[in-house]
Amino acid sequence: MTTPETPAQATHALPRTLTRDLGRHDGQQVRLQGFLHARRDLGGVQFAVLRDVSGVAQCVGSGLHLPLPESSIEVTGTVKAHPKAPGGYEIQITDFRVLSAAVQASPLEIPKMEWNVNPETMLDYRYVSLRGLKERATLRVQAELVRAFHEHLNAEGFTEISTPKIVSAGAEGGANLFKLDYFGEQAYLAQSPQLYKQIMVGVFERVYEVAPVYRAEEHATSRHLNEYLSLDVEMGFIDSEEDVMALENRLLVSIMAHLKATCAAEFALLGAALPALPDFIPRIPLMEARELVHREYGHVVGGKDLDPEAERLLCQYYLERHGSDFVFVTKYPRAARPFYAYPEEGGELTRGFDLLFRGIEITSGGQRINEYEMLMDSIRTYKLNPESLAGYSEVFKYGMPPHGGFAIGAERLTARLLGIANVRYARAFPRDRNRLTP
Amino acid sequence: MTTPETPAQATHALPRTLTRDLGRHDGQQVRLQGFLHARRDLGGVQFAVLRDVSGVAQCVGSGLHLPLPESSIEVTGTVKAHPKAPGGYEIQITDFRVLSAAVQASPLEIPKMEWNVNPETMLDYRYVSLRGLKERATLRVQAELVRAFHEHLNAEGFTEISTPKIVSAGAEGGANLFKLDYFGEQAYLAQSPQLYKQIMVGVFERVYEVAPVYRAEEHATSRHLNEYLSLDVEMGFIDSEEDVMALENRLLVSIMAHLKATCAAEFALLGAALPALPDFIPRIPLMEARELVHREYGHVVGGKDLDPEAERLLCQYYLERHGSDFVFVTKYPRAARPFYAYPEEGGELTRGFDLLFRGIEITSGGQRINEYEMLMDSIRTYKLNPESLAGYSEVFKYGMPPHGGFAIGAERLTARLLGIANVRYARAFPRDRNRLTP
Repeated sequence: MTTPETPAQATHALPRTLTRDLGRHDGQQVRLQGFLHARRDLGGVQFAVLRDVSGVAQCVGSGLHLPLPESSIEVTGTVKAHPKAPGGYEIQITDFRVLSAAVQASPLEIPKMEWNVNPETMLDYRYVSLRGLKERATLRVQAELVRAFHEHLNAEGFTEISTPKIVSAGAEGGANLFKLDYFGEQAYLAQSPQLYKQIMVGVFERVYEVAPVYRAEEHATSRHLNEYLSLDVEMGFIDSEEDVMALENRLLVSIMAHLKATCAAEFALLGAALPALPDFIPRIPLMEARELVHREYGHVVGGKDLDPEAERLLCQYYLERHGSDFVFVTKYPRAARPFYAYPEEGGELTRGFDLLFRGIEITSGGQRINEYEMLMDSIRTYKLNPESLAGYSEVFKYGMPPHGGFAIGAERLTARLLGIANVRYARAFPRDRNRLTP
Repeated sequence: MTTPETPAQATHALPRTLTRDLGRHDGQQVRLQGFLHARRDLGGVQFAVLRDVSGVAQCVGSGLHLPLPESSIEVTGTVKAHPKAPGGYEIQITDFRVLSAAVQASPLEIPKMEWNVNPETMLDYRYVSLRGLKERATLRVQAELVRAFHEHLNAEGFTEISTPKIVSAGAEGGANLFKLDYFGEQAYLAQSPQLYKQIMVGVFERVYEVAPVYRAEEHATSRHLNEYLSLDVEMGFIDSEEDVMALENRLLVSIMAHLKATCAAEFALLGAALPALPDFIPRIPLMEARELVHREYGHVVGGKDLDPEAERLLCQYYLERHGSDFVFVTKYPRAARPFYAYPEEGGELTRGFDLLFRGIEITSGGQRINEYEMLMDSIRTYKLNPESLAGYSEVFKYGMPPHGGFAIGAERLTARLLGIANVRYARAFPRDRNRLTP
């Protein structure tokens, strides 16, 4: 009979300490692990700055041969209060080990706050540039933002779902779809989980999904990604889109409170401020918003929606006059919304809304059509082909409750929160028109 | 100046009550919303069973015209204790509203526990079959499982990441990749976030991802999906793969405790039992495991790995002799592992492991090669082309710490937990060789 192995016991005299906890070990021996952030050799004395996930620590020793920066290292030594060292403590090294030596100098100096390089270079070397303090802080904030999204919705009784990204048709129409061969059939990458989250309202009433979505947009802009993380929400048994906006309002208040509690250091490092976010985000119907930017700023908006300049001006207005970095733009006309948007009586407008934040749209949402006959009417009104939408409309034969929802682009929200001009830098490994690597 | 709108106040006399909370309202008026689960008309008296996310409630009234089952309804009425009604209470209807009428009878009788239909029909009508009690319970358990995964790893200091699913090369080699045209370049859907999660260990030390992955496997089996939800983990500064197995062990204990606390009703409905899971899951090296199934059961294993029958027998053995539904199979030979698996001294074996659960592999994991020179040696040993792997190996020039990780297929774990024979029924909208819809 075979006896199960017992685990190999790591025989470290000391457990690992994180640099942020050094204050608790003043005068004691500690063992640190991390990356060699910076090094200096002053004749017989060597200084090594060790960076771990929680911060940095200055370590000093003698007779050491320090490897290239970014090598993984382990330092054992004594903690001494040292007012001039970062964090207020220094480690007097008694043992220095290289866990894994860098074999090539980093193309970017990780400790620097600004890199004087072509922005494309930063993306080419993303596997090291992400170790940069600002890049790390950005993605850390995003992780906490996504965590707060989960936690708030869980607390409100939502169920997380996972829906297909390989689909037979686009939810928003045929444009901007990545095509795929699926065992000989034409398939696409999902632009959004729209239909699927609606179906799941029939199962769990309140659902959310955190997953990538795909837009094959040819044009490169600072606000678009070809692959991004979509934070999708859908809720049933609503009275109107006001229930959906009220949920998004509560959710954002909750997310910002979480970021305030967990990411103060990251916001400080990035020179960013938490937004002005009232408990009741102001709302303005789209038609009034177009008039407002004309009246207040002389800006004439083309098209049926708002243009980027109008979004910027409207946000400026609501920040200055109402103290809010957010504003809901409501009652979009049908001409600016997809066929599944719930029409208002009269038929010109819908119960669709956008949420603008610091000059840019971060959400599209609204109430959806839930009745089969109304949906078929809408398909005719939009002059769409009922047969090509049969896979969508079929679902609504089975008593779908009144429902609505919204989606937030995680990277766009992160970028606006942190003052990052181009949304590509709010994603670890962005995909754009010209970038498929790393 | 425009005044922001105030929200349209829904003027319900009563807030909505969930059916599970009826016991708190005995003798009171309540307002319920949900689906018409079942209906009966006994002459002048109508019985309507209302189903909401939390359960069902029997409602009784007179003079009602009940719509088709699955219609969305709202019932207002008085709660009366009624021992024979499901949940112990009945609603005496004072107001009955149809929120959205089903216009076609459901192809499946939702209240039935078993449907006598072709399994493909259940998938064809997934948008209604998911409302079935067993289907809903299955996905509810999966949602709680994924939630516990997040919460445990957050508590252990892991950071959630989001990595690209459109990639320029496969992480596990060229087979079984879905191909994609990316603006004229050949791209693929990611089989796993392997390289990306390793890179992110250099940033956050401990990371996880919950996201879909893709396998273009031609053969249809009960254990494979072409798109599934991968629960990926990677951790740095480990001593060996034992640290990784210890983490997975703690994680599973945590997940099962969470399911016990939140999903007792779902397990009861599905006739499933929580697994036998010790605080120390037994381990056995692969070579010994192959000998064991031969010696104990006379089963000779072909190939270099375990075959499905060997997995089943090994699990039977560990359940009967060691009281564990789980067993780690360790020290896989290099021939059965990818080039990035960390070799043991001697070079024949690796620090790679699988985790078996109730007869099937649910995890592959292990320590990875973190040193550039060792990686280049391994690429040569495997007779792979260093140039085609340059995008992978480049990363290891910059001092990657010792690290390892694992991935759990969410649907496969859910299926084994709940006794679901085919993994397709543990995913809301499965994709397989012949299925691209709904």
